[in-house]
Order: sequence, then C-alpha cells, then structure tokens
Amino acid sequence: MAQKSGPVTHLCFTDTNRILVRGKDLCSDLVGKMSFTEMMLFHLMGTPPTSQQVAVVDAVLITIMEHGLTPSAIAARQTYFGAPEALQGALAAGILGVGSRFAGTSGDCAILLSEIVDAPEDRKKEVARSIAERFRAAGKFVPGYGHPVHKNGDPRVARLVEIATEQEVEGAYIEAMYMLGGAVNAATGKKLVINASAAMGAVMAEVDIPPDIMRGLVIVSRAAGLVGHLLEEMQQPASQRIWDLVEHGVPYEEV
Amino acid sequence: MAQKSGPVTHLCFTDTNRILVRGKDLCSDLVGKMSFTEMMLFHLMGTPPTSQQVAVVDAVLITIMEHGLTPSAIAARQTYFGAPEALQGALAAGILGVGSRFAGTSGDCAILLSEIVDAPEDRKKEVARSIAERFRAAGKFVPGYGHPVHKNGDPRVARLVEIATEQEVEGAYIEAMYMLGGAVNAATGKKLVINASAAMGAVMAEVDIPPDIMRGLVIVSRAAGLVGHLLEEMQQPASQRIWDLVEHGVPYEEV
Amino acid sequence: MAQKSGPVTHLCFTDTNRILVRGKDLCSDLVGKMSFTEMMLFHLMGTPPTSQQVAVVDAVLITIMEHGLTPSAIAARQTYFGAPEALQGALAAGILGVGSRFAGTSGDCAILLSEIVDAPEDRKKEVARSIAERFRAAGKFVPGYGHPVHKNGDPRVARLVEIATEQEVEGAYIEAMYMLGGAVNAATGKKLVINASAAMGAVMAEVDIPPDIMRGLVIVSRAAGLVGHLLEEMQQPASQRIWDLVEHGVPYEEV
Amino acid sequence: MAQKSGPVTHLCFTDTNRILVRGKDLCSDLVGKMSFTEMMLFHLMGTPPTSQQVAVVDAVLITIMEHGLTPSAIAARQTYFGAPEALQGALAAGILGVGSRFAGTSGDCAILLSEIVDAPEDRKKEVARSIAERFRAAGKFVPGYGHPVHKNGDPRVARLVEIATEQEVEGAYIEAMYMLGGAVNAATGKKLVINASAAMGAVMAEVDIPPDIMRGLVIVSRAAGLVGHLLEEMQQPASQRIWDLVEHGVPYEEV
Repeated sequence: MAQKSGPVTHLCFTDTNRILVRGKDLCSDLVGKMSFTEMMLFHLMGTPPTSQQVAVVDAVLITIMEHGLTPSAIAARQTYFGAPEALQGALAAGILGVGSRFAGTSGDCAILLSEIVDAPEDRKKEVARSIAERFRAAGKFVPGYGHPVHKNGDPRVARLVEIATEQEVEGAYIEAMYMLGGAVNAATGKKLVINASAAMGAVMAEVDIPPDIMRGLVIVSRAAGLVGHLLEEMQQPASQRIWDLVEHGVPYEEV
Repeated sequence: MAQKSGPVTHLCFTDTNRILVRGKDLCSDLVGKMSFTEMMLFHLMGTPPTSQQVAVVDAVLITIMEHGLTPSAIAARQTYFGAPEALQGALAAGILGVGSRFAGTSGDCAILLSEIVDAPEDRKKEVARSIAERFRAAGKFVPGYGHPVHKNGDPRVARLVEIATEQEVEGAYIEAMYMLGGAVNAATGKKLVINASAAMGAVMAEVDIPPDIMRGLVIVSRAAGLVGHLLEEMQQPASQRIWDLVEHGVPYEEV
Repeated sequence: MAQKSGPVTHLCFTDTNRILVRGKDLCSDLVGKMSFTEMMLFHLMGTPPTSQQVAVVDAVLITIMEHGLTPSAIAARQTYFGAPEALQGALAAGILGVGSRFAGTSGDCAILLSEIVDAPEDRKKEVARSIAERFRAAGKFVPGYGHPVHKNGDPRVARLVEIATEQEVEGAYIEAMYMLGGAVNAATGKKLVINASAAMGAVMAEVDIPPDIMRGLVIVSRAAGLVGHLLEEMQQPASQRIWDLVEHGVPYEEV
Repeated sequence: MAQKSGPVTHLCFTDTNRILVRGKDLCSDLVGKMSFTEMMLFHLMGTPPTSQQVAVVDAVLITIMEHGLTPSAIAARQTYFGAPEALQGALAAGILGVGSRFAGTSGDCAILLSEIVDAPEDRKKEVARSIAERFRAAGKFVPGYGHPVHKNGDPRVARLVEIATEQEVEGAYIEAMYMLGGAVNAATGKKLVINASAAMGAVMAEVDIPPDIMRGLVIVSRAAGLVGHLLEEMQQPASQRIWDLVEHGVPYEEV
C-alpha cells in the first residue's frame, strides 16, 4: 500500500533560500497574487482552481464559518477559560467537535450522493430509496438531512444552490440531493429538511472537491469562526457564566 | 471581570428562519458577496474590512499555509495513521503544535513591536535594546528572530514588507521589526535573521489585527495546509515509512 | 432521547465544604483508601470493583502503557517541540492517534466477541465465520487481529489470558477471541496473530467493562506512557532529530 | 542542545518477540506484578518507586479525578456530542482545558515552593514574600491559591497533607506551601485559601516527582474522570440540554 521510496511529500520543497509550493515560488508566484481560497485550492489540487471552484468554495466557507454558540464554540470557550496560555488548544478543542454529527457531514453526504449520480438515469430513484432504507434499517440519520433549529427549511441550502446555479455547474449532485431528501422523508414518514451540510457536500462535489476532505474545508472555516469566539471571550469573558449555568443545575424546564 | 447579564455572544443570532452574523443576514448579505478573508475579518471586527486589510491578511495567510514536513504536518499525518475515522482529530493534532516556538509567534512578536512603536521617537532604539537584553538575560529567544533553515534571510520577510508597502501602510511596526532585529543581534553577538513570524506580526499590526488573535489567523491557514497533507496521505500514504524511520533508530549521523 | 430534567451528572456533587463522588465523601472515604485503578472503576460503575476487576484492569493498563516510538509518541513529541508552553496539548495530540487502527480497537473487538458469546453454543463457530467473511468482503481488517511487528505472536496476549485465568473469569470472551482468530485466518488465508487489543478487549469483557469505554481506559494508560515520553523529551530532546530525519528525505531503503 | 546520536528513547525496546520497558520484560516482569501507579512511576523514573511515592501519588490521582461539571467535563461532553465516532477526540478536548488556570497548576506552584525550600532557613519567609509581591505587581494569581467554590478552605488540602504526614515525608514543601499562603494573603489583603493544586504540588514534590510533569500526572487522572463523564453521557445524554441552556440566552441573573 505505502510506497517504499521517493519523497514523502510533493506539496512543498524548501532549501536555504527558497520555498516552492506545488512547484511555484511561494514569494514571487503566490503571495500577493491570489486570495486565500485560491491558494488553498491550488495547494490541494496542484493546479490553479477555476473561477467556478473559487466562487463555490468561498460560498461554502462563508456559509459555515459561524452559527452562534454551537457545541464547538462552547468547547472552545471553556477550554480557553482553563488554558488561556494556549490559543491553539482552545481552537483544537472546538475543531474536535466537527465530526459525524454536526457540520462535519458534508463529505459523508457527498459520498451517498455519488452513489445516485453514478447510477444510470432510470435507476437513480431506486438507489436513493435504497440508501434511505439502509439508514432507516440501521436506525441512523442520513447525513445532511434534518436540523434541530431550522425546522421549516435551512435557509443556507437555497442560497448555496443559487450560487452554484449562477456558476453554471452541471447540477447532478444537487438533483441527487433533492432526490435523496424525498427518499428520506418517504422512508421515515417525517418531514426532515435538507440541511446546510448536504448542500455544501452537493455543491462542492459539483466542482470536484474530493468528499474525503470536505470535512477538512469545513473545519478551516469553523476555525476562523472560533477565532472570533475566542476574541470575544477575551474582550467580554462569558465562560464563568456558562460554567455556573451548567454546573448549578438550572431548571432546564424553564428555558 | 465577567459581565453578569446580556447575551453571551454578539457574533451571531439565529432563529428558525434566519442566521444573522454581526447583524447581517448570512444568506442574503454575506454568502456570495465576499471572499473568505473578507468574511473572516468582518466576523472578527464587526465592520467591513478595508481593501488594505484584506490584501495584507491574504498575503499573510498564503505565506504561512505550507512549509513542508513541519513538526505539525508530521503530527497530523501520524495521528491520521492511527485514527483515520476522525479527520478532525488529525487536524487538531497538527494545530496543537502551532505554539510559542514555531509559526505561532507572530502575536508574541507584535506585542514587543508595540512597545517600541508606542515609545517616543527618541527612545525607540533604547526600548528595542532593552527588549533584546531582557530576553538575553532570561536565556530566551526573541519571538520572530532566527530560523533553522533560512539562515541567510527568510525570503518571506521582504515579500510581506513589499505587499504592505504597496498597500501604503504607515510602516511604524515594520520599522520597529528591523530595529528590534538590530538590537537582538547586538545583544547576542549573532547574526539571527528576521523570520516570517516577525514579518507577519508586523504587517498584521500595521492593519490593526489584534496581536492576541494573530496566532489564531496563522492556525486557520495552517489548518488549510494540513488538509493538503492529509489528502496526500490518503492518496500516497507515507506514515508507515515515517514511523519505521523514526522507530528503527536510523543512523542520524548519516542524514 | 435526552432527559429533560434532573441533574446533568450523578457522578459528583460539590458545595462549599464537600466533594461527594458517587455519594462518598472524597476526602474521608476515598483518598488514601484505594488505588488509582480501584477509584477509576468505582467512579465508572458507582459500586466498588471486585478484586478480579482490579487485577484484570491493572494488567490491561500496564500492558498498553508503553510500546516505544509509536505514531502517538511521535505526534506528542513533535507537538511538544512546537508548543512547550502547553504540556496538555502534547498529551492531547498523542491521545488523538489512539483510534480505530492502533491501540484503540479493544472495544471494537469486544463488540464482535459479544456477537459470538451471545450465540447459542452450536452456532458460535458459524457466527465467528460470518464476522470474518463480513470484514473480508468489505476489505477491512478485523479489529484485534494482525500486528506489524509481533508477527510470530503478540507476547502480551498469552500473558493477559494467564492473568484472567488466575482470576478465574468464566472465559467465554477469551474462547471467542481464539475462535474468531481461527475464522479470520480461514477467511483470509493468512496467518494473522491475535494482538494485544483483542486480548485486552476479551479480558475486560470478562470482568464486565462496557466495550464503549474500553478505548477510554486504554487512553488513560497511554496518556501515562506519553508523560514518560515528554519527560524524556525535556531531558534529552530528540524532536529536532526526528524532524530532520523525516524532512530530509532519508533513503528509507537503507533503513 | 539535542544529542546527535544514540537511540531516541530509552523507555522501551521492542523486537518480534519481546517488549522491554526500562529494561524489564513487560510480560514476565511487569504485567500482573504491580498496580497502575507503580508501573507509571517505574516508567517515569526507571527505578521501582518507594511505597511512600506510590501512596502519595495514588492520593493525588484520586483527589483530582473528579470534580463535577468542570469546564473540562463540559468541553468533553460537547465534543462527544458532535463527534461520537471518536472517543479519543472528546477526551483530548477535555484534557486541553487542564492548563494554567484550573487543575493544571500543581507544577507551577511546586516550582515556586522550590524557591522557598532551596533558600537558607532564615531567608525563607523573605523569599515567600518576594514571590507574593512579584505576582501582585504583575496582576497575576499565584498558582495554587484561591478557589471559586471552596472559599472556607479546600477540604482536599488537609487530607493530602495528612496522607503525606502518615508517609513520613520530610515536610519542607508542605511548610513552604503554608508560608506562601500567608505571604499571598499579606500581599493581597485577601483571605485566599490554599487549593488542591498547591497541595498536590507540595506532596508530589515531597516524594521527588519532577514539577515539569506534575500537570501530566493530573491529566492522566482527569482523563480517567472524563471517561466516566463520557460513559454517563452515552447512558443519559445531557449535551442537548447543555447546548440549549447556553445558547438560548437564559437569564443568568436568576441562577
């Protein structure tokens, strides 16, 4: 499986005087020549991104940067409270919650959407149905469907689809996303909304981002959001209040 | 110290139908209207960033995204090797090494540069000298000075200064950065280079980024770089080789 | 799913003058009255552990504390190198690699062993065979079987079985462990050894440790081992050597 | 600084058939022959611990394992909520909060106590006073003094001193702990209690545990406590309640 020789990484070469990233000179070819998102995509793929890719990924990153006092933000703030000497630790704690349940499910969803997209036209609905059944039988949620707050529809979904449409993507993953949503509701008898993670997975798949690292891109953006929470925590500390609230057995019924 | 009432966060408000970030509607006002870096700075500061801020911060983020098989990248790859089910854990492990010694020192340096900038014109050199002496007496490195590889000069420093100059920043922190470099070399009798972290701290201070979260911005960019390392690790696994190499007591003298 | 009222935790109650853990006064009833392992098991289960449980869990913890320069130890040391101000970050980085591939698989294995143990006597072999086939068909390793170094047999397995036997456990999980090993080799046509994680899972299941937190107990012990690595790193720093070795593209063939 | 040759680690040697830890055969000499705490201390020091060391360290570990819904426990639970696939991530998040402010300060305190212990008899009080003044002038808390809950005295302090006394330690660090407490109150004009971290630092210093890794030992024990919180979270999930409580802007004044 693992190759036995050759350099470990093709991403970067450095010597005393130079830093080459993907074969380009960092200082003369890259710094000052592109935006953060362009650089990130160039670094990941090794070729310059299309304007379509940049537009869609920027939209995804902006969509997911901030969503209030999420479990991630609470973990980051409580960690900073105990260890203010290490900002990196508070950010890491926040990132560790971007997993299989919240925010981190775009790639898991995109892999399911691929099953549908890769099926022949006349079998797509059947594949969607079988995915929904598979999860129902296992007693699991389908990643990307349902939201605890946005019960009438997650407003980020339509906006991301709109951006992707403006960018003239093919639309096969977006179509599969709606198809799977229908199948999920048919299988469960519920009215689960399509959530932002499904839409992020679909539109990133439209522009060829590998599903395996979609969670990684989400984490980059959440990390930026968490920096904001930590700056606010420095300026207007709330962790003692959060701690008191949680520890003192507040009457949750009254919330 | 901690306030006793009012909302915990002013960053975001959500209800069933809306997500407001810093008072703007996420979907209609922000997604599709700005780049990642613009959004991150708007989120941090609460007001739209200037074009100067965006240009300088983009340059910083691109500068620090990738530097080869750093200790951070090694930690992230080795962690992914043991726990491939949790990409977030591998990214967190990589981030945890962005601390007081490598990459994470921009803010520490910027705080020192502020001491110089805030001094009266005729006392700046004296302040720089006293900082250098303070660290020498404590047997510590001054954050931002010296580099194990780029011993003839870190090429990223001149480039960042160039970008900042093009953006017509005032230049007081950049001036202080060179002044402190001179003082460090006078105090130690060595020829330590100014490294990228000093330059990142100086140019970010020029555009009013708070030193306390500079490490956070660096981490956001390093996280993007680490996503690239993890994608490469998925495609061309090298962790078994790295492990073998480290564990088998290779004759380091031969390296 | 989540309960709506009542205290969040039944583990501990504190007020100005007292700390009660599982209803016992920490200072008068627990400190000085038991070993670390007894306390950990009391805390987990809410009732005093049997001497059998303490003996088996102590054996497991000692077995897994240290195994040289594992990927976990490399990650912890490289993280400490970059962020020596935060020992907790280096430990966290090391822990993050105790996942589904190395060291963290005892619980995953124990869940499989339960499938066998719970089957009627005359169907156990069939269940073992079907587990092995299921993994082979999915192209996955069965957790607890195979070892990259101890190819002739992992010496820790026999020792853990010996301890459990001395403690007069029933032996159903140990029997299932050997049965599954046979099935795995029949299914793959290889000679994979039973590794320490399988044995740890089996003997902990014999004494009623819930599989869901077996990885947690392993992590507690690995954390202790990593403290040793970090102390050694402070006293005889090796991280620069490790970094040089990995980054400089050493000819791995010569190792 | 870094040595240039020789093995990276002296903690462990493995080959196909054997695992040697500190020169002892893991299976025949260690597993089944000692408790967890004995093994951890043997691993750290390379020589068998005294019974005094085992008794004192066991008391410390039991003291710090559990203290209710601490910021660490909140962070661990919220992280598990988002990423239940990775128990290691939830534990890591909890550990990241054991830093310079809560629980992680034993070593920082022990280093201060050493300054007093190492001073000539007739200068000890003066050294204690100068430490207290140094912190007051810097506007910082002295690590180990003050507690937000146990305002009349932290009950763990007397108990740890009692254990150490039963074990007939010399008592110089314990004496210094009380001396520094007096100096802190004289310098601040407050009545700050000596907290458990100070006492843990003092009694561990009495039995020759290096201050640099005291935080590491505390983390090992807290990790065990956090395993208990995560098991409870699996059995009686509370994270959704905690999240609702924090996010919904509960009237904190009413707490």
